[in-house]
Amino acid sequence: MLHFTRRADVVDIQSLSRSALEHKADPYAYPELGKQKTLGLIFFNSSLRTRLSTQKAAINLGLSCIVMNVGSDGWALEFEDGTVMNGGKAEHIKDAAAVMGRYCDIIGIRAFAGLAERSSDYAEQVLGAFQQYAGVPIISLESATRHPLQSFADLITIKTYQAVERPKVVLSWAPHPKALPQAVANSFIEWMQPAEVDLVITHPEGYDLSPDFVKDTPVIYDQNEAFRDADFVYVKNWSSYNSYGKILSQDMNWTVGERQMTLTNNAYFMHCLPVRRNVVVADAVIDSDRSLVIEQAANRVVSVQTVLAEILKSL
Amino acid sequence: MLHFTRRADVVDIQSLSRSALEHKADPYAYPELGKQKTLGLIFFNSSLRTRLSTQKAAINLGLSCIVMNVGSDGWALEFEDGTVMNGGKAEHIKDAAAVMGRYCDIIGIRAFAGLAERSSDYAEQVLGAFQQYAGVPIISLESATRHPLQSFADLITIKTYQAVERPKVVLSWAPHPKALPQAVANSFIEWMQPAEVDLVITHPEGYDLSPDFVKDTPVIYDQNEAFRDADFVYVKNWSSYNSYGKILSQDMNWTVGERQMTLTNNAYFMHCLPVRRNVVVADAVIDSDRSLVIEQAANRVVSVQTVLAEILKSL
Amino acid sequence: MLHFTRRADVVDIQSLSRSALEHKADPYAYPELGKQKTLGLIFFNSSLRTRLSTQKAAINLGLSCIVMNVGSDGWALEFEDGTVMNGGKAEHIKDAAAVMGRYCDIIGIRAFAGLAERSSDYAEQVLGAFQQYAGVPIISLESATRHPLQSFADLITIKTYQAVERPKVVLSWAPHPKALPQAVANSFIEWMQPAEVDLVITHPEGYDLSPDFVKDTPVIYDQNEAFRDADFVYVKNWSSYNSYGKILSQDMNWTVGERQMTLTNNAYFMHCLPVRRNVVVADAVIDSDRSLVIEQAANRVVSVQTVLAEILKSL
Repeated sequence: MLHFTRRADVVDIQSLSRSALEHKADPYAYPELGKQKTLGLIFFNSSLRTRLSTQKAAINLGLSCIVMNVGSDGWALEFEDGTVMNGGKAEHIKDAAAVMGRYCDIIGIRAFAGLAERSSDYAEQVLGAFQQYAGVPIISLESATRHPLQSFADLITIKTYQAVERPKVVLSWAPHPKALPQAVANSFIEWMQPAEVDLVITHPEGYDLSPDFVKDTPVIYDQNEAFRDADFVYVKNWSSYNSYGKILSQDMNWTVGERQMTLTNNAYFMHCLPVRRNVVVADAVIDSDRSLVIEQAANRVVSVQTVLAEILKSL
Repeated sequence: MLHFTRRADVVDIQSLSRSALEHKADPYAYPELGKQKTLGLIFFNSSLRTRLSTQKAAINLGLSCIVMNVGSDGWALEFEDGTVMNGGKAEHIKDAAAVMGRYCDIIGIRAFAGLAERSSDYAEQVLGAFQQYAGVPIISLESATRHPLQSFADLITIKTYQAVERPKVVLSWAPHPKALPQAVANSFIEWMQPAEVDLVITHPEGYDLSPDFVKDTPVIYDQNEAFRDADFVYVKNWSSYNSYGKILSQDMNWTVGERQMTLTNNAYFMHCLPVRRNVVVADAVIDSDRSLVIEQAANRVVSVQTVLAEILKSL
Repeated sequence: MLHFTRRADVVDIQSLSRSALEHKADPYAYPELGKQKTLGLIFFNSSLRTRLSTQKAAINLGLSCIVMNVGSDGWALEFEDGTVMNGGKAEHIKDAAAVMGRYCDIIGIRAFAGLAERSSDYAEQVLGAFQQYAGVPIISLESATRHPLQSFADLITIKTYQAVERPKVVLSWAPHPKALPQAVANSFIEWMQPAEVDLVITHPEGYDLSPDFVKDTPVIYDQNEAFRDADFVYVKNWSSYNSYGKILSQDMNWTVGERQMTLTNNAYFMHCLPVRRNVVVADAVIDSDRSLVIEQAANRVVSVQTVLAEILKSL
């Protein structure tokens, strides 16, 4: 694995998943794997789980970590080629990435979608520039269109809790006061499609995700129908892909409560956090014993540790 | 010791103080005590001494440290139960604390008083939420009403410098341009009362601290009288407890200078820092050879290292 | 070496340069040199290369690192002596520096020129205060008037790439949209003058640097003439020293492009980064195979590691 930015970067998911269960069972089995190696964590956006879980995983592997918040710690970066840089941007990504690649053996990047222009978000400009110029393996700490460390943690969580061989997994949109990226939803689909689950997507009309991600996954506009007999319900808000970055609905009927959960096969509730309680999901559901949200978060250490270990072995 | 948030959390102060002197004498005696353990430091407010001394102590113990500035690094947290979270707060403390507890073996929290509403400050909402939801030991890096690591460092400092068996210790209010919390004063009282010292509090009328802290400690409104024959003078500003969070006086007669120090028994001058020079205390006093302020700051490494070591041994 | 803030702090540059080449060849040769020692990095300004390269060097030496952004992490500091501190500054540098010196074995400081008042910038108030009050070795991570870790890295780079015994090195001004300090230029001159190179300075009239730095180095106002037969071209913007902190010219004829480079002896192009592309230098030059900018940045790890190792050995 050279980079870890999308599902397609994983060559052998079976092997990676087995490795994840081993890291989960014994987090301190490789205390020297990261010796004399440095992981740079570059945040263009806020982070709690990713920031902490990645540092924790690095500690477990004996890997040194340097954290940098672009913007507050450093300066604004230019991404366009050939620009006359006489405006507000102090450094070109070409130079910044190449330099970081000389200081770090692996670089993690968090760079959310701007939600202003779909084509540039879906071109993954920031992540792509680091892959192109840094000269070292890049891991995505959530990019404009994907959040693979979250999805891998979600996969581990589902594998751990599934009671049937081929569980029904529902990805449901829910309302939110702010316009959010499609990254978590896209990525969840990307990781679930090849997994041995029956994936169904449900959202109000107008919230269809990119066909490049949805492919032939069933989409049902009736949330109740989608939830019927579900084993896992994965809830997440996203803004519109077609009316790009727009909020089309804040319909609280989509807020997941006990009403919808009773339709399921006593489903587990999942969310990547942070979550707006009583907007995305009712307290009664997220606080119930079927809620896996804290377990998912805990598995974030497992997913990133597994990926880091894999990359370290290949260096 | 499960948590370290107040004097009452310490079961055996004699034993803890002995341990402190051992850590002070040999800071590197336990370089592996923190092995494979992680300390999360969560700052809701600025910090210099606490930030640096706690990281230094962790290094001495071989304990890995993850530092997070809530607000700049992460996002605003919701503390009210049952809220419909459609405003500016992105995550509920319930979820954030539970998640942090899965990444960290010990969590340190700095969360100052807001000084807007006394009841919520004195209810210790933030610290209490972490204790309730994180599931791991919590240490206070200064909460709304207390600063126990400072008070423990102050106790160590006094024990080290006292020339008589039962020294007279004066806690004196001093003026300040901004409204400050009562935390340091409350906490100092809480740690001095059971110590073998004669504690006296002095401040202008209207600046009485909470009776829950003052108890039967003598309060004298005449600073000169209070200072007479003192062995240690501990100076600190606080805003009014009764007219909550208000500045009632900026009377520079309370600024501690040589005039007041001559009344004492050649007392040592103490302050927790940061200090407004020539407002709280005159240069001549803080720069004199009776000033212990840098020694107090140095003992911040000792107090937090002792507490961390104690908790680590119990994990 | 007690401090590392200027060229004059280096007693034996030959020995230090030899040491640098050894660290470059084998960065992990001294993994325990920093054991039980702590380096505090205090940033008053933004940093990318310095932040990352210094942490990387510390990791290589087994030296623990504590990073602090003054301003966002801590509070505003007072530098004037005897002030009545009833304004916006919460702590005096005297106290802050003395405290940091109790927590850290070495302190690195980044404090840029304010460019408002020349006398206070050139008095090196911030750096000087840390040297005066911290009681531990201070290394400059770029001060108001110098950037010695950059200059040392530049020296290492030139030594590595020079093809002739006494290369011609040109320091050239280039335009920039913002007013920048003279630190990098001053420092480069300070390190080049005693080196075995022929140094020439070129800039538009009005951009003369301080005579205390320039001394008898030839200054040529005609960039073309200066570039003739150069082996290394070091390009950097600075604001006026005489009309202090002012931008006198944004003449894009000074932007270094292929036109000027063809006049040289196939010179290497150098810049300390971050660089405004197509304002300071044309893409064609910085992206050419004669550009050493990434190599210079990589040598920042070498220069700081060499200096840290030297200081650690002396503790």
